[in-house]
Amino acid sequence: MKQLFVVGTGPGDPSLIAPKAREAIEASSDLVAYGLYMDLLGDICAGKQHHDLPLGEEIGRAKLALELAASGKTTALLSSGDIGIYAMATVVFELLDQQLQGQIDQPEWLEVEVEVIPGISAMQAGASRVGALLGHDFCTISLSDLLTPWETIDKRIHSAGAGDFVVSFYNPVSKKRDWQLNHARDVLLQYRPASTPVLLGRQLTREDEQVTITTLEKLDAKDVDMFTLVSVGNSESRHIVNGNKQWLYTPRGYKKKL
Amino acid sequence: MKQLFVVGTGPGDPSLIAPKAREAIEASSDLVAYGLYMDLLGDICAGKQHHDLPLGEEIGRAKLALELAASGKTTALLSSGDIGIYAMATVVFELLDQQLQGQIDQPEWLEVEVEVIPGISAMQAGASRVGALLGHDFCTISLSDLLTPWETIDKRIHSAGAGDFVVSFYNPVSKKRDWQLNHARDVLLQYRPASTPVLLGRQLTREDEQVTITTLEKLDAKDVDMFTLVSVGNSESRHIVNGNKQWLYTPRGYKKKL
Repeated sequence: MKQLFVVGTGPGDPSLIAPKAREAIEASSDLVAYGLYMDLLGDICAGKQHHDLPLGEEIGRAKLALELAASGKTTALLSSGDIGIYAMATVVFELLDQQLQGQIDQPEWLEVEVEVIPGISAMQAGASRVGALLGHDFCTISLSDLLTPWETIDKRIHSAGAGDFVVSFYNPVSKKRDWQLNHARDVLLQYRPASTPVLLGRQLTREDEQVTITTLEKLDAKDVDMFTLVSVGNSESRHIVNGNKQWLYTPRGYKKKL
Repeated sequence: MKQLFVVGTGPGDPSLIAPKAREAIEASSDLVAYGLYMDLLGDICAGKQHHDLPLGEEIGRAKLALELAASGKTTALLSSGDIGIYAMATVVFELLDQQLQGQIDQPEWLEVEVEVIPGISAMQAGASRVGALLGHDFCTISLSDLLTPWETIDKRIHSAGAGDFVVSFYNPVSKKRDWQLNHARDVLLQYRPASTPVLLGRQLTREDEQVTITTLEKLDAKDVDMFTLVSVGNSESRHIVNGNKQWLYTPRGYKKKL
């Protein structure tokens, strides 16, 4: 059997990697990933052939993983978080779809058994780190306009505001892109209070983790980098302080009508 | 130290339980959960004091867990999936918040160290089982109107439709509640095509798992029970068929303007 495992390795803490993900890596001879992820994984990746492609080479990584698997090498394509959420799993299926539509000529890819193994995503690591910020209806929005028109993203931020969803922003800023997050803040301020609690979680569950609790009004792109998760509470999310501990949570119920 | 672990044990498959969750259970003398979850967990729970409260007794379960921990017993409060997503973590913080506001009289609860450990949620188990349905912006909506006015839920479904989010419905039906899912379908049909792919995932990752791929038009509450996750693609989600395998995925990009 020609096998490709598509594996999410969680937010960073090795004790949050599911045993099923670990088994898939162990069963593989070849690992394809952005190199930084493999460094984080440490021992599990020892003795495997590593194929390290840089950030930005997502399609190249997915193609390579399919090629290796199609050639008979059991292969694991890895990314941190949940590989199905803004990550590599979708790229693999985009390629298979293109092959099925005859847009490319790699029929051997269709013989590969693909298994996707989910992982814990950054929003979950962040929400649990500060309490229970995802306790009620929530959404995720990527602020990257590389592949999505900004008008679409803007409309989606308005919809998230109108629906009063807890919002987690993925790809909040990049080196070339810094104004979108402040714009998103200004949109949400049209729908929910300035005091709405916000979580900034940088390098969550890793050694250099930084967790900041702020408010929607004070959210500023200058405090955020590409390793930061930004989660904004809904209009009823609460910030509570017990001595030197503080928590954010979103109540289960919804007393107020919109 | 008085310790309460608040632990999500994933969708059901023991190989999707994070080692960190397992360690927390092992470190505890007392486990509080709806009994069915403990049966699923099997050996990890052996030799622990089990406190089994039925479904519907969520507040009772959270109170008991805080009481046990405050009395010095290291305790784990468990639920399946991610305990921070529509689950028990929020109830614990609601109770601590009430105590901090002086609405109840359990000051000893405030001495408890609370640690929340996230787990893989049903939407992730479902999306990975069929490919990569959560590959772009998504939201979750609970259809339970026990604590949330129906008008709020209805407005939120409209917002999800307007924003063209992939939508996962939690609590889609119950014994007493069956019309909301069909209403939600009719709302989403105002915003996205009748052919939009839909995943029905029943008892995901468990022995009696049933996975059904259908369309938004054909989605019907009669095919759904309280153990079923319902995830509806966005307007660009794709259903692809390769021989006897089929996949659902949501492309990374967004070509069409809304």
